[in-house]
Amino acid sequence: MYGIFSYDIGLPRLGYRHHNAVLDLEVVALLGFFNDLDIDTSVFAQPSLNAFMALGRTVHRQVGQRVRDLLADSEATLLRVHDQVLLPLERVTMHLPVQIGNYTDFYAGIHHAENVGKLFRPNAEPLLPNYRHLPVAYHGRASSIVVSGTPIHRPAGPFLGPDQQPVFGPTQALDLELELGLIIGKANRQGEPVPVAEAEDYIFGVALFNDWSARDIQRWEYQPLGPFLGKNFASSLAAWVVPFDELEPFRTAGPIQEPTLLPYLQSSKPSHFDLNLEVWLQTGDLPPQRISHTNTQHLYWSFAQMIAHHTISGCNLCVGDVLATGTISGTQRDSYGSLLELSWNGARPLTLADSSTRTFLHDGDTITLRGFGQTDGHQLTLGDVSGTIQPNT
Amino acid sequence: MYGIFSYDIGLPRLGYRHHNAVLDLEVVALLGFFNDLDIDTSVFAQPSLNAFMALGRTVHRQVGQRVRDLLADSEATLLRVHDQVLLPLERVTMHLPVQIGNYTDFYAGIHHAENVGKLFRPNAEPLLPNYRHLPVAYHGRASSIVVSGTPIHRPAGPFLGPDQQPVFGPTQALDLELELGLIIGKANRQGEPVPVAEAEDYIFGVALFNDWSARDIQRWEYQPLGPFLGKNFASSLAAWVVPFDELEPFRTAGPIQEPTLLPYLQSSKPSHFDLNLEVWLQTGDLPPQRISHTNTQHLYWSFAQMIAHHTISGCNLCVGDVLATGTISGTQRDSYGSLLELSWNGARPLTLADSSTRTFLHDGDTITLRGFGQTDGHQLTLGDVSGTIQPNT
Repeated sequence: MYGIFSYDIGLPRLGYRHHNAVLDLEVVALLGFFNDLDIDTSVFAQPSLNAFMALGRTVHRQVGQRVRDLLADSEATLLRVHDQVLLPLERVTMHLPVQIGNYTDFYAGIHHAENVGKLFRPNAEPLLPNYRHLPVAYHGRASSIVVSGTPIHRPAGPFLGPDQQPVFGPTQALDLELELGLIIGKANRQGEPVPVAEAEDYIFGVALFNDWSARDIQRWEYQPLGPFLGKNFASSLAAWVVPFDELEPFRTAGPIQEPTLLPYLQSSKPSHFDLNLEVWLQTGDLPPQRISHTNTQHLYWSFAQMIAHHTISGCNLCVGDVLATGTISGTQRDSYGSLLELSWNGARPLTLADSSTRTFLHDGDTITLRGFGQTDGHQLTLGDVSGTIQPNT
Repeated sequence: MYGIFSYDIGLPRLGYRHHNAVLDLEVVALLGFFNDLDIDTSVFAQPSLNAFMALGRTVHRQVGQRVRDLLADSEATLLRVHDQVLLPLERVTMHLPVQIGNYTDFYAGIHHAENVGKLFRPNAEPLLPNYRHLPVAYHGRASSIVVSGTPIHRPAGPFLGPDQQPVFGPTQALDLELELGLIIGKANRQGEPVPVAEAEDYIFGVALFNDWSARDIQRWEYQPLGPFLGKNFASSLAAWVVPFDELEPFRTAGPIQEPTLLPYLQSSKPSHFDLNLEVWLQTGDLPPQRISHTNTQHLYWSFAQMIAHHTISGCNLCVGDVLATGTISGTQRDSYGSLLELSWNGARPLTLADSSTRTFLHDGDTITLRGFGQTDGHQLTLGDVSGTIQPNT
C-alpha cells in the first residue's frame, strides 16, 4: 500500500506500507534502487501520490515488484545501507494520500438503497425505477475530505425540529457511511467517454472511505437537488491506498444484473470483488466493538460500470479524483453500513458493551472502518480509516 | 476585469481588460509599476488568477487603482515605455481564469424554481417547503468547467424514450442555464463557518456562467441524489472576472424574505445587486437574437447568504472555488433563464427570425450570456460567456 508520510522535520513524501513499518520511497529512490526503471524519481518526494499515479500501470507494477524484492531480501541489503529507510509506523505522521480534484459518491450498495427506501418511503417500492438501470451518483465536496485520524467536528446546521419547524443547532443524527473509495490514476479527455472494458485501467487503487453524514440536516435540505450540508462538512479517507492489481485474487462475478443494461454498461468480465468490510465503534473506556460486517460483493454496480457511467456524458476524470461506492450494506441486520440502518432510524438502537445505546454518534465516539480479503493462498489487509467525533463548540 | 490570456509563444498570464484591449500585467509588473506595493509580483505571471486572488482585498484595491491610473494617463507613459503592454483583444487567446477546486451550484433564482415546480409537479405547490428557509444547493463537477468560447459537445447518456423505457443516445433536450458565478478569493478553515456579515469578503469577483444541462438525462437520473450526467459534461465560465468592489454601485435591498430566517442567514445590509442579464442565440446565417433578459435582483438569496449557508456545516471554501447562483429567471415569459422555461418544456417553442423554432438547442447554435449594470453615473459591463453546440459524433 502507498501513502504520504512525514517524520521529524522531513517534508511529506511517498511511503510503502510493510507490516507495521513504512518504507521511505524517496530514500529508496535516492539510493538508486529505481535507477534502471526509467522514471522521474522526483515523484517519490511529492506531498501526494498524484504524480506517481500519473506514471501509469506499467511503472506501478515495476515499482511494486522492486519494492517487494527489496523487502523480501533476507540479507536486508537496503537496511544495511541506510538504517532510516524502514520506519516504524508509530514514528510517522500520515497525510492525505491524494490531492483530490473531484469527489463523486455513488449509490451502488443495493441493500443500503433498499433500506433507505423502506425507511423514508414506506408505502412505495424501496428502489426507485432508475436504480437497476444506471449507477446513481452525485457530486460530493472534495475540499473537506480528510485523512484517517483527523478529528471530526460535529457539524451544525438547519433541520426540522419536533414540531416540524426549522431549527438550528448541532446535528442530532451524526452517522457514518461505510464505503470504498476508488482513487483515479488516469485522466480521460473531456468529450471522450471511457468504455466499460477499459475502465479499470483508470483506477490506481482503492482506500476505505467514511462519508460522515448528518441525517437530520440532509433530510430537510435534500429535495430536489440532493445532499449538501448533510455531507460536505467532512469525509475520511484511509491513509493507505491499495494498488488495484492487489485486488485481482479477490475478483468475482458479482450479482446478476436485470433488466438487461444499456450497452455502455454491459461487461462480460467478472468485475466485482470479494472484500470483507467491518465497522468498529470505540467509546469511553470500552474496547472497540465491531458493530457491522459486510462485503463489497453487496455492491450492485461494479467499479468499471461506475467509471463508464461517470464519463459517458463526456465528463473528464482527473488523476486524484475519488469515486466512492456509496454505503455498502449486506442483507442482515448486523451487516448494514450506516447507523441509520443499524438502528433502523432509532426504532432499534444498538446496545454497546456497557449497556449504553446508540442511534447516532455521540461526541467522543471513534469509528474505524476495516477491510480485508481472504481467499486460497491470498490475504490482503486494507488501510483502516478512523475518526473521533468532537463536540460542536 | 481580470483574466488569463496568452499570445504568440508566450505563456498564459494575468491581463486586465480595458475596452477592447488587454493590459499585460506581467509586463506592467516587470516594468516596475507595482514595485511600491509590497507584493510578490510573480502572481501576475501565473496561468490562473488564484495566487493573485489569495493576496486579499487590500492588494486587489491597490492594484486596481494603479492600473486605472496607468490607463487614465493621457500621456500614456506606459505605452511609450513598451508598445506590447496593451494588446488588442483579437490578438490574444483567453484561458480559464481560475483553477477551480470545487464548484457548487445554488438554486437561488426563485422564479426558476417556481417554474420548474410548475412543470414537473403540476399538482403541488411549485416551491418545496424548504425553499424559503435555506439556499438549496448541490455540489457540481469542477473538472468540466471550460472558458467562454470552448465548443460544447452534445453529450450522450441514458434517458427515457417515448415508451418510458430507458434508451441511450445524444441528448434531445440540451439546455442553457443563465447564472452568475462567484469566484472565491479567500479560504475558511474546515470547521469554522463564515458569518453572513463577513461573507462578501470571501468573494474575489463575479463572472457569467452557463450551466449547460441535458434535461432528458437529468430527469431520468436525478432521484434521489440530484443531477449528475445531466450537468457534468460541461459548464462555461466567462474569461473575465469582475472584481467584487465594482458591483458596489449596483447594490440593492433584494426581495423581502419571509418567513423569518434562522439567525445564521439574517443580514441587515442590502446584499443583492441590480445587474441586467441577457441570453442571445445565434444560428446559421442569422444575426444573434436576444431570447431573454432578466436581472440578478430575481435571486431570492444573496451572495452573502449563499456563503454563510455553504460553510455553516464547517465546510471549507478554497481560493478558486466557484459558487454559481443557479438559473436566474424573471417573472415574465421573456425573462426566463433556460429554454426549459422559455419553451415551457416544448409547449410553446421559441420562434427565431427565420421562422424556425427552438424547444432545446440544435447543433450549431451559439448561446451567449451578457450582463451589464447601469445606474446614475455608473456603468459596468460583465465579460460575455458563449459556447457553440457541436454534434455528438
